[in-house]
Amino acid sequence: MAKKQKTSLVVMTSSRSRLPLYYSLLRQLDQEGVKTVSSATIADYLNINPVLVRKDLSGATHVCGMPKRGFEVSPLLADLKGYLGYDKQDEAFLVGVGNLGHTLLSNRGFEDLGINIVAGFDNNPALIGEKVGDKPILPMDKMDEFVRRMGLRIGIITVPSACAQEVCDNMVSCGVKAIWNFSFTMLNVPEDVLVKNENLPMSLALLLQQMKSNTEQ
Amino acid sequence: MAKKQKTSLVVMTSSRSRLPLYYSLLRQLDQEGVKTVSSATIADYLNINPVLVRKDLSGATHVCGMPKRGFEVSPLLADLKGYLGYDKQDEAFLVGVGNLGHTLLSNRGFEDLGINIVAGFDNNPALIGEKVGDKPILPMDKMDEFVRRMGLRIGIITVPSACAQEVCDNMVSCGVKAIWNFSFTMLNVPEDVLVKNENLPMSLALLLQQMKSNTEQ
Repeated sequence: MAKKQKTSLVVMTSSRSRLPLYYSLLRQLDQEGVKTVSSATIADYLNINPVLVRKDLSGATHVCGMPKRGFEVSPLLADLKGYLGYDKQDEAFLVGVGNLGHTLLSNRGFEDLGINIVAGFDNNPALIGEKVGDKPILPMDKMDEFVRRMGLRIGIITVPSACAQEVCDNMVSCGVKAIWNFSFTMLNVPEDVLVKNENLPMSLALLLQQMKSNTEQ
Repeated sequence: MAKKQKTSLVVMTSSRSRLPLYYSLLRQLDQEGVKTVSSATIADYLNINPVLVRKDLSGATHVCGMPKRGFEVSPLLADLKGYLGYDKQDEAFLVGVGNLGHTLLSNRGFEDLGINIVAGFDNNPALIGEKVGDKPILPMDKMDEFVRRMGLRIGIITVPSACAQEVCDNMVSCGVKAIWNFSFTMLNVPEDVLVKNENLPMSLALLLQQMKSNTEQ
């Protein structure tokens, strides 16, 4: 694995938001055959204070670091997986099975983090009844019943911006509490519903701005 | 447009990183036929202090707010577009034309923000010579020459994690200064190269954690 990440990560203020990052890093180290890792190395990879890393890990796992060697990767990973609930899968669904919807439905990375995107909904008759891997594509008019019956609380919006608010309203009325929004629409939701916007073009535009700032310095 | 965004945005410390957000919002308002907008409304949508909004906009544009009415959307948009350089297109390229690569190549949102993803590279013979919209898919062994000749400085990595570092090294050797990384590999780059990681499964996992925190409160 590359020695040092030069990227600055989004500010993370709670151990709850840092733990998934430790998990992701440890998983990668484990796959690369790394057996032990120090809190300093973890801190270095993720741009986090090593004291905080030790505090977070001791709060969430039973694995103790060994002097000079650090933590054993494999048991630490197993403990974190249990603590984060990644051994129990959470279920999400997606509306809008275009290019991006397909991409997300077929991405195996979600399952590694304990998330199963169980189905995609669309109103294109040509898609309905098809599958993406083992995930069915269902008609929009089945969404309400399906989401309520399964008790799904996480919805992913990959429809065009023009119909995103309508899809969002439907999700909320079915009991969805967290929406991952890939449209460019700023969604209006009740206080108890979380929205995370994933504006990919804007993300690249911000990187570009940062590159230009760096070049000018 | 929905009245109030409940999402908290990533902390943005410079006007340079806020200006693209103003642009994106104003573009949406303009498309919806909104003629004037106050700094308070902009601030409200984006969770930013209104004083900061006025400061940012007066530094980047020649448009003055009118008492009680605010800014005229259309000239403000035109000024911001020029200031941000979105009227001059920046060019990027992409390596790995799988599902996600296809999705990004066919996304028109980039061009709205002044970014043209000019080509995709892949080593799958079945893809080479094909096009995604008007974007060619070129063989990997043409990347070096193409990127140098075009002077491209922005590379997008949508290859599997296992070959991401190799692709990154190739990009860096061609003069790339900003990498948008969709693989899960933490890339090793020289000091003067920016990396932005876009780990989509992790992004959803963090939203899920946040939802669970909220539910427990």
